[in-house]
Amino acid sequence: MEFSPVNTAWVLIATALVFFMQAGFAILEAGLTRAKNAGNIIMKNLMDFCIGTPIYWFIGFGIMFGTGSLAGGIDLFTRGDYSSVTPDGVPFYAFFIFQTVFCATAATIVSGAMAERTNFVAYCIYSAVISLVVYPISGHWIWGGGWLSDMGFHDFAGSCAVHMVGGCASLVGAAILGPRIGKYDKNGKPRAIPGHNLTMAALGVFILWFCWFGFNGGSTVAMEGTTTAAGGAAEMTMGALAGSVFSTTNLCAAVATIVAMLYTWIKYKKPDVSMSLNGSLAGLVMVTAGTDCIDMFGAAIEGVIAGIAVVVGIEFIDKVLKIDDPVGAIGVHGVNGLLGTLCVGLFSTGQNGVGKGLFYGGGFTQLGIQALGIVCVLAWVGVTMIITFTILKHTVGLRVPAEVEISGLDIAEHGLASAYAGFEISTSELTSDASDYEVIGSEKMETAVPAVVKSLNVPEGKKITKVEILMKQERFEKLKKAMNEIGVTGMTVTQVLGCGTQKGAPEYYRGVPVEMQLLPKIQVEMVISKVPTMDVIDAARKALYTGHIGDGKIFVYDVEDVVKVRTGESGYDALQGADD
Amino acid sequence: MEFSPVNTAWVLIATALVFFMQAGFAILEAGLTRAKNAGNIIMKNLMDFCIGTPIYWFIGFGIMFGTGSLAGGIDLFTRGDYSSVTPDGVPFYAFFIFQTVFCATAATIVSGAMAERTNFVAYCIYSAVISLVVYPISGHWIWGGGWLSDMGFHDFAGSCAVHMVGGCASLVGAAILGPRIGKYDKNGKPRAIPGHNLTMAALGVFILWFCWFGFNGGSTVAMEGTTTAAGGAAEMTMGALAGSVFSTTNLCAAVATIVAMLYTWIKYKKPDVSMSLNGSLAGLVMVTAGTDCIDMFGAAIEGVIAGIAVVVGIEFIDKVLKIDDPVGAIGVHGVNGLLGTLCVGLFSTGQNGVGKGLFYGGGFTQLGIQALGIVCVLAWVGVTMIITFTILKHTVGLRVPAEVEISGLDIAEHGLASAYAGFEISTSELTSDASDYEVIGSEKMETAVPAVVKSLNVPEGKKITKVEILMKQERFEKLKKAMNEIGVTGMTVTQVLGCGTQKGAPEYYRGVPVEMQLLPKIQVEMVISKVPTMDVIDAARKALYTGHIGDGKIFVYDVEDVVKVRTGESGYDALQGADD
Amino acid sequence: MEFSPVNTAWVLIATALVFFMQAGFAILEAGLTRAKNAGNIIMKNLMDFCIGTPIYWFIGFGIMFGTGSLAGGIDLFTRGDYSSVTPDGVPFYAFFIFQTVFCATAATIVSGAMAERTNFVAYCIYSAVISLVVYPISGHWIWGGGWLSDMGFHDFAGSCAVHMVGGCASLVGAAILGPRIGKYDKNGKPRAIPGHNLTMAALGVFILWFCWFGFNGGSTVAMEGTTTAAGGAAEMTMGALAGSVFSTTNLCAAVATIVAMLYTWIKYKKPDVSMSLNGSLAGLVMVTAGTDCIDMFGAAIEGVIAGIAVVVGIEFIDKVLKIDDPVGAIGVHGVNGLLGTLCVGLFSTGQNGVGKGLFYGGGFTQLGIQALGIVCVLAWVGVTMIITFTILKHTVGLRVPAEVEISGLDIAEHGLASAYAGFEISTSELTSDASDYEVIGSEKMETAVPAVVKSLNVPEGKKITKVEILMKQERFEKLKKAMNEIGVTGMTVTQVLGCGTQKGAPEYYRGVPVEMQLLPKIQVEMVISKVPTMDVIDAARKALYTGHIGDGKIFVYDVEDVVKVRTGESGYDALQGADD
Repeated sequence: MEFSPVNTAWVLIATALVFFMQAGFAILEAGLTRAKNAGNIIMKNLMDFCIGTPIYWFIGFGIMFGTGSLAGGIDLFTRGDYSSVTPDGVPFYAFFIFQTVFCATAATIVSGAMAERTNFVAYCIYSAVISLVVYPISGHWIWGGGWLSDMGFHDFAGSCAVHMVGGCASLVGAAILGPRIGKYDKNGKPRAIPGHNLTMAALGVFILWFCWFGFNGGSTVAMEGTTTAAGGAAEMTMGALAGSVFSTTNLCAAVATIVAMLYTWIKYKKPDVSMSLNGSLAGLVMVTAGTDCIDMFGAAIEGVIAGIAVVVGIEFIDKVLKIDDPVGAIGVHGVNGLLGTLCVGLFSTGQNGVGKGLFYGGGFTQLGIQALGIVCVLAWVGVTMIITFTILKHTVGLRVPAEVEISGLDIAEHGLASAYAGFEISTSELTSDASDYEVIGSEKMETAVPAVVKSLNVPEGKKITKVEILMKQERFEKLKKAMNEIGVTGMTVTQVLGCGTQKGAPEYYRGVPVEMQLLPKIQVEMVISKVPTMDVIDAARKALYTGHIGDGKIFVYDVEDVVKVRTGESGYDALQGADD
Repeated sequence: MEFSPVNTAWVLIATALVFFMQAGFAILEAGLTRAKNAGNIIMKNLMDFCIGTPIYWFIGFGIMFGTGSLAGGIDLFTRGDYSSVTPDGVPFYAFFIFQTVFCATAATIVSGAMAERTNFVAYCIYSAVISLVVYPISGHWIWGGGWLSDMGFHDFAGSCAVHMVGGCASLVGAAILGPRIGKYDKNGKPRAIPGHNLTMAALGVFILWFCWFGFNGGSTVAMEGTTTAAGGAAEMTMGALAGSVFSTTNLCAAVATIVAMLYTWIKYKKPDVSMSLNGSLAGLVMVTAGTDCIDMFGAAIEGVIAGIAVVVGIEFIDKVLKIDDPVGAIGVHGVNGLLGTLCVGLFSTGQNGVGKGLFYGGGFTQLGIQALGIVCVLAWVGVTMIITFTILKHTVGLRVPAEVEISGLDIAEHGLASAYAGFEISTSELTSDASDYEVIGSEKMETAVPAVVKSLNVPEGKKITKVEILMKQERFEKLKKAMNEIGVTGMTVTQVLGCGTQKGAPEYYRGVPVEMQLLPKIQVEMVISKVPTMDVIDAARKALYTGHIGDGKIFVYDVEDVVKVRTGESGYDALQGADD
Repeated sequence: MEFSPVNTAWVLIATALVFFMQAGFAILEAGLTRAKNAGNIIMKNLMDFCIGTPIYWFIGFGIMFGTGSLAGGIDLFTRGDYSSVTPDGVPFYAFFIFQTVFCATAATIVSGAMAERTNFVAYCIYSAVISLVVYPISGHWIWGGGWLSDMGFHDFAGSCAVHMVGGCASLVGAAILGPRIGKYDKNGKPRAIPGHNLTMAALGVFILWFCWFGFNGGSTVAMEGTTTAAGGAAEMTMGALAGSVFSTTNLCAAVATIVAMLYTWIKYKKPDVSMSLNGSLAGLVMVTAGTDCIDMFGAAIEGVIAGIAVVVGIEFIDKVLKIDDPVGAIGVHGVNGLLGTLCVGLFSTGQNGVGKGLFYGGGFTQLGIQALGIVCVLAWVGVTMIITFTILKHTVGLRVPAEVEISGLDIAEHGLASAYAGFEISTSELTSDASDYEVIGSEKMETAVPAVVKSLNVPEGKKITKVEILMKQERFEKLKKAMNEIGVTGMTVTQVLGCGTQKGAPEYYRGVPVEMQLLPKIQVEMVISKVPTMDVIDAARKALYTGHIGDGKIFVYDVEDVVKVRTGESGYDALQGADD
């Protein structure tokens, strides 16, 4: 075939879909981790695609699709002739961009496993390394005409070449990196660190499932032409193959989701949301290697395996290996990528030219080849990744300092105060960290605390007063200025709901008794001693007065004492000088 | 035609898009309901697809596309020969997966109408029933070669077969289920229960609109070949038909959105956001039945009808029928599905082999057939759904207990504390429920409250003190430990903004006066009596001290009294024993 | 070619993708602005598409694709014969809907630049004007067979026709509108106003990138047939062209992202998240004009230019021009649209029939034509937009009143209390506004404040007491009712975390010491004088009592005084009458 418009369109549409997986991964990983790292996770997902793209063009594609056996070849900026590996009827650049988006998918899997604690520079370098050489070499063996494909190793759309590679790199990376602070208690028991936005994570899973139709369906790289049907003798059209790929992919994912849900239901007594979402992905990863050569029954059974494997796998990694993988990437992509690759040797019907699997009368041949491929790819990726991450650890540093991890990577690595400037971040997220984390030197601190507080009696004539103002939010800047002018330099602002009725006014509205309404307000507290209370009240009234109901109230309380933590000063003195 | 690569590609790409509607529905429904149920809604949307997929393969497809007249046939695991119903040039599995994703769409519509109060198990069973038999039977009548299609009933892409079926099931489900607690006051007046995330709901609508191009466009199931043009005499290519489908679908949705907005603008004085979003969906549902046989003018008029019908319909259901449909699914899918199916009989130009509509010179014939079909499908779905939901109600139970509904289904049904662990949930959402809800036995409680509080005088020598600490969030765990060690067992944590200036330092920075800055802090409050105040202050200082500005302040207040609600103990005693 | 199924499918799939850009723009713009305007931004994005659709059908398409030279022609409801401009093998309506979604993209760019302060009616009218005449006229010159295209001006997919037009309209609109309140201090120094949800903004960018494959790839409007290869002599298939378009588009975007990140890293010392996201879009806009006629090296260099231009451009507009563009639309679409159009004259290889660029041996010819086109389009859009926005300013009003802007457009323009009813909006967003904003008449207020507070001594026998209740959220409605009944009419509700241990119970659970747990509670405060404290305590206990641990505690404090801001009343009197 010289040129096939429909094959080309098919490959290019699949390319767009596979690209869009980046969005799915980005928001899935962000949603399953904490709000304070969301910007950083977005950046890592964006950057591994953006770094991988030019690097794969620069050298990766040539290594993957050149004519060597162990590796392709060095072809700077991919200027060689690849017509022998380009699929029938598909122009070079259509195939090139299709391969580029696959490469980026392998790289991005790792960001989830290493989330919330990895140095950004180190991650960028890792990302370059995997796109430059690690993925292209094993990819060459499997898809580029290398020795594994020559042996008959079959990985249709990348359970091994993409997902197991990504999962293996994740395992190495997360292990060398170590767990997040607070993930394991002193007895090594794992603690749950809930993701900050599960709805967004779910949207990520739906996006990934959607895109997987491009990932697997597009891997036929053809719509015209024919291939062998089940059994290997009869012919089937490439369209029938694509229909079969869509159907088995979807069925396996659906069954895996149900099984993961049921398994957690039995085990934890409730159907778990995030594990069910992981179940969907596990099914998708599982079926990817053999979706072209299994039938619907094979797909359903693979779904059952995936649904159990993902829960068992994630728990094993978390509780036994004690490797902290915040999003379950190793369990989803590593474990199921491996099993899915192996399952080709069990469930292959012989369709699409693949050797028959064990359960379809093919004996152990295909299974053996699949196992050999898995071992070799694991060895390759494991060794190169151990080297890469170890070098990174001892050069630029793989992990951020503990203070950065606790305060969040967004602010420390990107100068981003919060990815969610519009929302209140939950108090429990902000305080949950660091339960086992001892600030360096904290032992010495006890003796170092200076000036023990002497007494709690405020000296004569230096009464301390707390002024509390309940007011509308929009007037805060005016109040702040007014207070600043009369010398009040510290205040605390809390968001509250004010709740009141107009008792004087008629109590019915359209025949319905008016209930008390809750209106958003702020409560501003100041503790003063030097500045007279009356001055504060007068200045506050001037700043807040409009003459309308709702201008607010000012409350005055007595304070018995106040202590400044840093200096140990108490009473009047604690309120002077630099504000703490 | 033996095999058409381009037709097959067209159907498969549409399949991916129709699948992706699940994402649109999931986040639309989650966004229009409350945060405490978001995880549950995600699970329901995920599960109805995952349950529907194997069930439709197991038996649904055979019932829908077998050769019977009232129903297809029983064909376990869909192994029969369907070449007579498979579209020209499209391989079986491509058509099969296309039909599977349509089936799941009908099921998922209901989750929105029954949101926030349905038992999860009951929902899973309902979901199986609709995919197993309800949708396939009416689908057989309409699309599977059954009696309705023989009569000339026309429903191009599913206004009736998918949306009206889903809408009707929603009506039955929501009616049998009853309204959410707090939705209607004692006089039956509906109350607004705002959705928790309108931006996400809007993204859901955009996703649905996007996918509708696959839903409607893909329903041509061909790109090669020809059909009849308007009037029924001339020929047009299938590509021209697809172009026309895209154009009329888009126009109808756009006009419906504008009309819904204008209608709310006139009625409520402001252009309403969520009703406008419903307007878009209403237009899409409306046009779906006849998008292949109407022209642009017909599409525009249908848009006007949809925009008004959705607002009127939703209000009628809410205010007159008093059926609580949290997302407006009945108004959007039921009402507009019905009207859209009917409109084929009004606006059909005779294109694509459809009988001409009333306004295009076709008389009442097509209109009558459409009306008959609507009545029969409503009867079928109505009766089977009443049976289904009634059985569910009296076996596993259709509705969660009131306590579960108030606390949210996420925690009770899925053990998920919050889908948004990273965010503060709004106080008004957390407190808004239950205004008409009386806890069972609450009348007896008045007499049951033990040990009336005797006095408010704290006994001699047992002074009660409140210690309030303003501090950095990251030190909270250390403080908690320190307090625990000295015997302070209860504390309250509030998120505040601390606001201060460095008055001692230069007041200008790069020539610009430094304004007071707001920094996130926490305020920890403890009320103590047994533990001496000085011990608390010393322990707190040791936990918080770093020697840098910002270590925080400790305030001490007098407390007049404290009462423990449960026991009625006051003063010193109220602070002892198990913490309340 | 009579009819090409594959070309038609290609164009229609691209149409769906280009439509989906609306989703990307909507959530990108919403994410980069404040939560209080999210609903309004959604509405603007929805409405410009919905208004543009019928208007482009009504008259826009005819103006754009009629046979005139300066403008097409008036063809109401697009009923003419456009077979001369319709691409080979693509039916009319497929081309029509493809053009419709392009038109809507140009309109929607502006909503970001004018966000957070524009009158909704004015925006709707602007949106109609740009779709009705502004975009169609310049579009006619470039794509509709007008004079610019006759001269050889090349803008493949719309760097100029869509993005520069949108960017230029943005510049005019934002300039005439003026900056948001608080954006510039009195010295004209810009202040950062952070977007409320960066994760959502990032998802928007990923969606846009995904859709851009349709935007640029679909602009080949063919998959069958051939065109000229680089150099202009040899032939290449349209599929090869599409592959090349995908590859150059993706590479340019990736490189632009990296360069923007590195540039901010050097300049601000940290890799900036939102600028990197802008970098992606800049690269996509940049490459759009010439993606069909440049090679991979050209794409990479254009990426470098885009990555720098977007950062420099946004800063220049913000700091030097002092035009407030909340999302950077002018820098992204205007600046890069212009540069990308110009770059065709530099980097064109002569592929796809385009004249060669300066660096590829084509001399200054193509560059000159590109520059001429840019100037003319800028002049046309600039002048018509100045007229449009000026008329709007003096008729319906372009800008919302200051109070509306401060309280947010959602509530004022759409009656939507919050797009995020489920979340606490951050205190800093709620208070950050208005630092330079002086409420009208505030100078007069000082003298206007009535009844100076006389003293702070509460009269004999009128003790003021604060009752503070720490309780479960779900009991709030009961408490509110109970308080209302005994005459307590004002209360303040704060969300807190209660932290306690069961000290009486065994301190170990499964061998692990129980740590204090944080549970969400609310703290209700009431300040009372008339109602006896004991009555409040008794009523509160009745409302809260269940007999289980966790019923809560009631604290009583002395209040020294209270002042009502509006009236200046203090003490007992401040607590009577209408609640403030």
